Amino acid sequence: MLNLKTPSKDRWLAQVDAHLDQVLIDHAHCEKKAAATALNLMFAYTDRVELCRELSEIVIEETQHYQMVLDVLERRGIRFRRLPPSSYGRKLNELIRKQEPAKAIDRLLVAALIEARSCERFSLLRDHVTDRELADFYASLFESEARHYATYVQFATQFGEEAAVHQRLQELAAEEAEIIAVGDELPRMHS
Amino acid sequence: MLNLKTPSKDRWLAQVDAHLDQVLIDHAHCEKKAAATALNLMFAYTDRVELCRELSEIVIEETQHYQMVLDVLERRGIRFRRLPPSSYGRKLNELIRKQEPAKAIDRLLVAALIEARSCERFSLLRDHVTDRELADFYASLFESEARHYATYVQFATQFGEEAAVHQRLQELAAEEAEIIAVGDELPRMHS
Repeated sequence: MLNLKTPSKDRWLAQVDAHLDQVLIDHAHCEKKAAATALNLMFAYTDRVELCRELSEIVIEETQHYQMVLDVLERRGIRFRRLPPSSYGRKLNELIRKQEPAKAIDRLLVAALIEARSCERFSLLRDHVTDRELADFYASLFESEARHYATYVQFATQFGEEAAVHQRLQELAAEEAEIIAVGDELPRMHS
Repeated sequence: MLNLKTPSKDRWLAQVDAHLDQVLIDHAHCEKKAAATALNLMFAYTDRVELCRELSEIVIEETQHYQMVLDVLERRGIRFRRLPPSSYGRKLNELIRKQEPAKAIDRLLVAALIEARSCERFSLLRDHVTDRELADFYASLFESEARHYATYVQFATQFGEEAAVHQRLQELAAEEAEIIAVGDELPRMHS
């Protein structure tokens, strides 16, 4: 359903086990970046009112998730702080084509794939972490990330031929799988 | 209370009467920009958790206001579209000092003054427009903009001596008053 070409490896869960604090802090940063991605798209495609309405819902939901992760950090006594990001987002954003409407399609599909990977990882974390509160939290995020994935893919098809957009989704999903297979030494949500 | 140094002139209400559609469209853009201002501050001052929590509330509220203005436009059959902005925001942002912590103080105080001017104008519009639905809408926005003004000023004082920050607020308010006195030929929320 999520079009991911490779599952996350145990290597990543080992990073989570060794550095859960950092993964939680990075998670808050990721939610904030997800809100910014949706808001930036609202500025770029301002005349597409139907798209902008959906994006504005995503801005609100991701900002609420950011607040929820801050709550989790506070309850666990972890200080939220600046953290160097993993290379995942940068590598994916480098794949975005420069000319419209290809640029719009790629921006939306890259956003979709990041939501899809987050969704897969929340599912893994839900089954992996032993802390009940944390497991429930990850379970609660799963549904909205899957929904955001579907929204982004659906709107990408408004910028091009449906078959071509789905072909491009497969290409970008293959690239995403390679990026995830390489991973990142930093313990992060998308390492 | 709002520290504005000059009231809006009748000239502005004449612009509103002649071009209400444009003012409404510009209003939606302003709400979106207000959300972006708060989100940008969350990225700039990411370690200040208390500030970031308040900013995240502002992001959510301003995004909801944007949705509400889109609803108003739809009910009135006005197509939302790109519009050249007034010079107000640009002129105010040019006053922001470049070095921290003065930069943080100025960014927060400029955001405060924009909220204050919006607040004053919503109050004027509430009493001016004859459309009941629209008058109620402006009345509903008044309270949150006043609250955002207070929040921005309060957090500005965390970046410097309280007396110096209030002195700077007076300076910026005087500049804001001059910008508003000159106005803008384009009929906008802040023309």
